Amino acid sequence: MILLSKTLAGIGDVDREAGEQAQKRLDSLTKPPGSLGILEEIAVQLAAIQGKAIPVLGQKVVMVMAGDHGVVEEGVSAFPQEVTQQMVINFLNHGAAINVLSNQADARIVVTDVGIKGAAIEHPELNIRKVRPGTRNMVKEAAMTEEEVTAAVEVGIEMVDREIDKGATIVATGEMGIGNTTPSSAILACLTGKDLDLITGRGTGVDDEGLIRKREAIQKALEINRPNAEEPLDVLRKVGGLEIAALTGVILGAAARKVPVVLDGFISTTAALLAHKLNSHCQYYMIASHLSQEPGHRILLEEMGLKPTLQLDLRLGEGTGAVLAFNLIEAAVKIISEMATFEEAGVSNKE
Amino acid sequence: MILLSKTLAGIGDVDREAGEQAQKRLDSLTKPPGSLGILEEIAVQLAAIQGKAIPVLGQKVVMVMAGDHGVVEEGVSAFPQEVTQQMVINFLNHGAAINVLSNQADARIVVTDVGIKGAAIEHPELNIRKVRPGTRNMVKEAAMTEEEVTAAVEVGIEMVDREIDKGATIVATGEMGIGNTTPSSAILACLTGKDLDLITGRGTGVDDEGLIRKREAIQKALEINRPNAEEPLDVLRKVGGLEIAALTGVILGAAARKVPVVLDGFISTTAALLAHKLNSHCQYYMIASHLSQEPGHRILLEEMGLKPTLQLDLRLGEGTGAVLAFNLIEAAVKIISEMATFEEAGVSNKE
Repeated sequence: MILLSKTLAGIGDVDREAGEQAQKRLDSLTKPPGSLGILEEIAVQLAAIQGKAIPVLGQKVVMVMAGDHGVVEEGVSAFPQEVTQQMVINFLNHGAAINVLSNQADARIVVTDVGIKGAAIEHPELNIRKVRPGTRNMVKEAAMTEEEVTAAVEVGIEMVDREIDKGATIVATGEMGIGNTTPSSAILACLTGKDLDLITGRGTGVDDEGLIRKREAIQKALEINRPNAEEPLDVLRKVGGLEIAALTGVILGAAARKVPVVLDGFISTTAALLAHKLNSHCQYYMIASHLSQEPGHRILLEEMGLKPTLQLDLRLGEGTGAVLAFNLIEAAVKIISEMATFEEAGVSNKE
Repeated sequence: MILLSKTLAGIGDVDREAGEQAQKRLDSLTKPPGSLGILEEIAVQLAAIQGKAIPVLGQKVVMVMAGDHGVVEEGVSAFPQEVTQQMVINFLNHGAAINVLSNQADARIVVTDVGIKGAAIEHPELNIRKVRPGTRNMVKEAAMTEEEVTAAVEVGIEMVDREIDKGATIVATGEMGIGNTTPSSAILACLTGKDLDLITGRGTGVDDEGLIRKREAIQKALEINRPNAEEPLDVLRKVGGLEIAALTGVILGAAARKVPVVLDGFISTTAALLAHKLNSHCQYYMIASHLSQEPGHRILLEEMGLKPTLQLDLRLGEGTGAVLAFNLIEAAVKIISEMATFEEAGVSNKE
């Protein structure tokens, strides 16, 4: 709890003056003011985070947190539970979508087992920080104890801290956890009071009956656990997940170190809303990537006023959407760094 | 007219069997089927265009067509007319947004003067194919003669043909022409019958009075010229632009050579709708990039059933949005080429 409290206390405001200087520079470049839209907003945001009128990109890292979910025994997922472990092995063997896209984006993948069920995976590239082998089934009891949820959040803080120490300057969130759209929808329902029909989707592709089971499971979990919507950690503990908690930690840890965090889809953005509720300064450090097919994702983004730039109908997770957005963020940095000004180019400005 | 007729006759269907093979391969990869959304659709489309189950990307080229507009004398633009020429010089000196983004995307820029007003620009990298120094003012008479509009379309066909001969395997459209959202809105109004208020926007940032002048100019141009909505070339000739005509040619030429074309924003997509009306097979070769701030853009994309993947609130043109999409298209190709299958990775498939 000490690390978490210290991290929360360390998250401050961004440098608005640097942001204004960045906007001034953007307005001097050979294009109509504001005509590069969200690319300009991203450049200004990075400037404010980094405290530099001309921001840099540097080392990109995607933090992939993996964990299992007790609630899977309720039949809420289209894939069997062992796929969490199998896919993590696939990540380590560079066979998954996140590997292909991270390779393209020149981003390093850091995979952490914060709570996978089953035999331990032995691999030099895997960080084993298992808090427990999967959460408890939230339909029957709280998913985690107080100690466990804090430990899982702190795994995220420690892991992102270590990567920033090693040189990471921008971080993307990713996850693997069969069943994890179920706790994400439960958290969203609890934090926003929205109707379950609006915020519960098919995840990786559950059928109609599975979708009914999923909504019932969330309903029961909320009734049995009665999480306190005013206490993000209580919500996370009772109806959350270990990898969701760790991602909350990644976001808090990055914000405390003034490092921008690129959010992936529904699960990552659930973790972001929890981080935001724990310290509202967090959102200055967040960059949305894509708008997922999962219906709750749009609601999460709207809650924080974040604008997704990619509309690809993704519903994969792993960090894939976030890593695809690195190119756009790099474009924003290159625009502000490399374009000619009206004066340099001898171009007439607006009449 | 011979080249145009020959090109139109040469645009055929895509290889649907190759597309199906690509979808089959995508479904065997370690992800829930369809979970990479539009990236999967792009991979399938490229496979069908190229007639290969696993498509390749190859050499990226952005075809930037530049021309001036007589209608600018009606006060429809926020920038003076000489900016067309000044910005083309900026492109040639690598100072503009399109240069920065093309450099990032490893795309080559091919700039063609199809009708800039003013003194000739001398630069080894500029292709001078000036049909006339700017269109006539469409508020007073037809923007082009029949010979001129055909010549401008054929410039586009010839230029894209030359680039494909030199190795281009994917082409983006870009343009420069102060005032060119005005003819684009006029074309869109004519081809779709939509209300001018819905499809006329602020372009590079015209003020309220300028917007009123712009709508009035379009209204007058349509009344005076009475373009025949059933004849795309008649519409293009009377209320179009030289660079818009050349881009129509680029799209036709690329489709005839079975090369995919990535569309930029409002002006490029107007050219695309004209190409589509000339030969409806064209749309199989088109990939939308972004959804621009210009209100008519969404309508153009919907007319052709195209889905934009980037929501960046851009309103710059030049090809900037199209070039930003190259990264996503490359991602689609890498996904289908490099990901592991369920079998290779030993991952359990859907239950």
